[in-house]
Amino acid sequence: MNNPIGFQVIKTNSSSNARLGKITTLHGEINTPAFAPDATYGVIKHLSSNDLNTIGLSIVLGNSYHLSLRPGVELIKDQNGLHNFMKWDKPMITDSGGYQVFSLVHAKKMGKVLEHGVEFRDHITGSKHLITPTTAIQNQLALGSDILVVLDYPVFPNTRSEDNEYSVARTTQWAKESKQAFLNDPRSKGKILIAVIQGANDLDLRKRSYEELAEIGFDGYAFGGHPENDKIAAYTANIIPDEKLKYMMGAGPPDDIKKFANMGWDLFDCVVPTRNARHGLLYTSQGNLRIDNSQFQTDHTPIDEVCDCELCITYSRSYLYHLFKVKEPLAARLATIHNLTFYMKLMEEIKEKIKLD
Amino acid sequence: MNNPIGFQVIKTNSSSNARLGKITTLHGEINTPAFAPDATYGVIKHLSSNDLNTIGLSIVLGNSYHLSLRPGVELIKDQNGLHNFMKWDKPMITDSGGYQVFSLVHAKKMGKVLEHGVEFRDHITGSKHLITPTTAIQNQLALGSDILVVLDYPVFPNTRSEDNEYSVARTTQWAKESKQAFLNDPRSKGKILIAVIQGANDLDLRKRSYEELAEIGFDGYAFGGHPENDKIAAYTANIIPDEKLKYMMGAGPPDDIKKFANMGWDLFDCVVPTRNARHGLLYTSQGNLRIDNSQFQTDHTPIDEVCDCELCITYSRSYLYHLFKVKEPLAARLATIHNLTFYMKLMEEIKEKIKLD
Repeated sequence: MNNPIGFQVIKTNSSSNARLGKITTLHGEINTPAFAPDATYGVIKHLSSNDLNTIGLSIVLGNSYHLSLRPGVELIKDQNGLHNFMKWDKPMITDSGGYQVFSLVHAKKMGKVLEHGVEFRDHITGSKHLITPTTAIQNQLALGSDILVVLDYPVFPNTRSEDNEYSVARTTQWAKESKQAFLNDPRSKGKILIAVIQGANDLDLRKRSYEELAEIGFDGYAFGGHPENDKIAAYTANIIPDEKLKYMMGAGPPDDIKKFANMGWDLFDCVVPTRNARHGLLYTSQGNLRIDNSQFQTDHTPIDEVCDCELCITYSRSYLYHLFKVKEPLAARLATIHNLTFYMKLMEEIKEKIKLD
Repeated sequence: MNNPIGFQVIKTNSSSNARLGKITTLHGEINTPAFAPDATYGVIKHLSSNDLNTIGLSIVLGNSYHLSLRPGVELIKDQNGLHNFMKWDKPMITDSGGYQVFSLVHAKKMGKVLEHGVEFRDHITGSKHLITPTTAIQNQLALGSDILVVLDYPVFPNTRSEDNEYSVARTTQWAKESKQAFLNDPRSKGKILIAVIQGANDLDLRKRSYEELAEIGFDGYAFGGHPENDKIAAYTANIIPDEKLKYMMGAGPPDDIKKFANMGWDLFDCVVPTRNARHGLLYTSQGNLRIDNSQFQTDHTPIDEVCDCELCITYSRSYLYHLFKVKEPLAARLATIHNLTFYMKLMEEIKEKIKLD
């Protein structure tokens, strides 16, 4: 490997904060801005690792919460890690599992948040678990992820200010413990560690959160919470220094990705392209297409004339309409291949635009 | 095309009635004994036409009953036929639709059998339909099938002898009308027409059925009813002259196919390999494997060491076990690819054995 592990800026842009970058991992490089689709259970629904290579993905995201339940972290460790288990030999990012755990606690009252972590019951068997900053790191190291994310304490965008302050303080404390757990574990060599900036919609708290995390020191920083407020998202991108990886978690539809890339965010992950595909919403060069619209029932043309994915070079809209109507699994598969191909092209266009500017 | 459309025997076998043959169609040749998987709704569940070519299929079967309901024969005709609709450019056989219609009538009391056809209500909307020998042929011609099967009047294996005689008489009369409809339609040029021999478990009636059909004249003859009685299946194969295509409908598991091929049957179709795949039953060189057996949960080895399908060259049993556990559609897809690859190898082995004998 010529480059050191970590993030490098390759080129900045004169008309926006967008930049080209490169993340170097033990499993190869990722050119940024980059998009990581969700391989929740160690699989992007409907797709094999062959398919991921055909689509041209450079990174996928594994969900620690789901994988720790099924098939379990120990099993994956015994299978020589998630890369080997799912036969994906390119870079992989994992989340901490915190997002799902906090959802269980907040939305379903299936646990409680403690000083040192979160106690919860899982959504499958209802068994009791404890997640702490240390276990979140250890799980991700056992999975063999290239890019790890610390356990954070999320709050809703317009949360009360005392809750917001508590979230920032907890997030800092947990980030400290995460960093310690990371450094203490020899498996962390060559791995990238990302902290999560909290502060909800409060600019000062966003800044405080970043500064406290920066004092601990991380390879990159992620945006915690839902970036429904552009000002907060742009502000947060700006307080992260340019040499650090900027990760916008859980974003988003194509226009959001363009917008956030212009703010300087480098890395994205989202269920949107794959979930929408399964529900028959396809992205095209002419805009969104809902294949269940009856106008497509007899349409001989491909989904998108300019797309070269298996769906578009092979089948008519009429056939895909039919496959969805008879609930044929191939429908969701072809649509997933299409939407991810669209996203890869989107990321190429974003990079091209930064390069030429 | 060098060979005339139709069936040719290439080589007979000294130690059994098995033979090598070739079916020549407008969409290319099929070397027999051959297996046609079911593409019920114009798709082999989970597979694209690319996949069918990768697996090496030489023929697929389309179900007239299902296709006539969804998307409808008119729509497929407007899409230039089923080959073009599903992008399969190799040979295709269709059934008459009679099997499903008689099932509705007998098992669900959703219709009645008349002299000139069957009146029934479909299983989706409950709308009323009429299928006659003529409409069954016209539908298959509209679909663009290469090998058509006439509407027959099936009975259960141990039916009362008067019902059995009635079934044979109806089947003959309907075959006559089918042949007429076929000859009257210019789209039948270059198509192969197969009649169905009834007679249940009565050897004399099997013979009578064949002789009455032979007088009308067909390119091939199929075994009507369930061949649970080997004597009947062997006897029926023998009464069909050697120069005619012998089609064993709805068979079967690998051992059945070997057995029937030894009797001289040339063509097979069955849902077994694909349906079993979806339920986690995989065929291997070491016997059947139920992937949901917990012994496979941590098994690093491939499903079948000697198989070169995408599943076996890529993944461990442990991963496939996991995919089935989390109900991931890729599980059924990979298993389907595997089982059909196994069947293609099975047919190659059967042919090789006949060749060498």
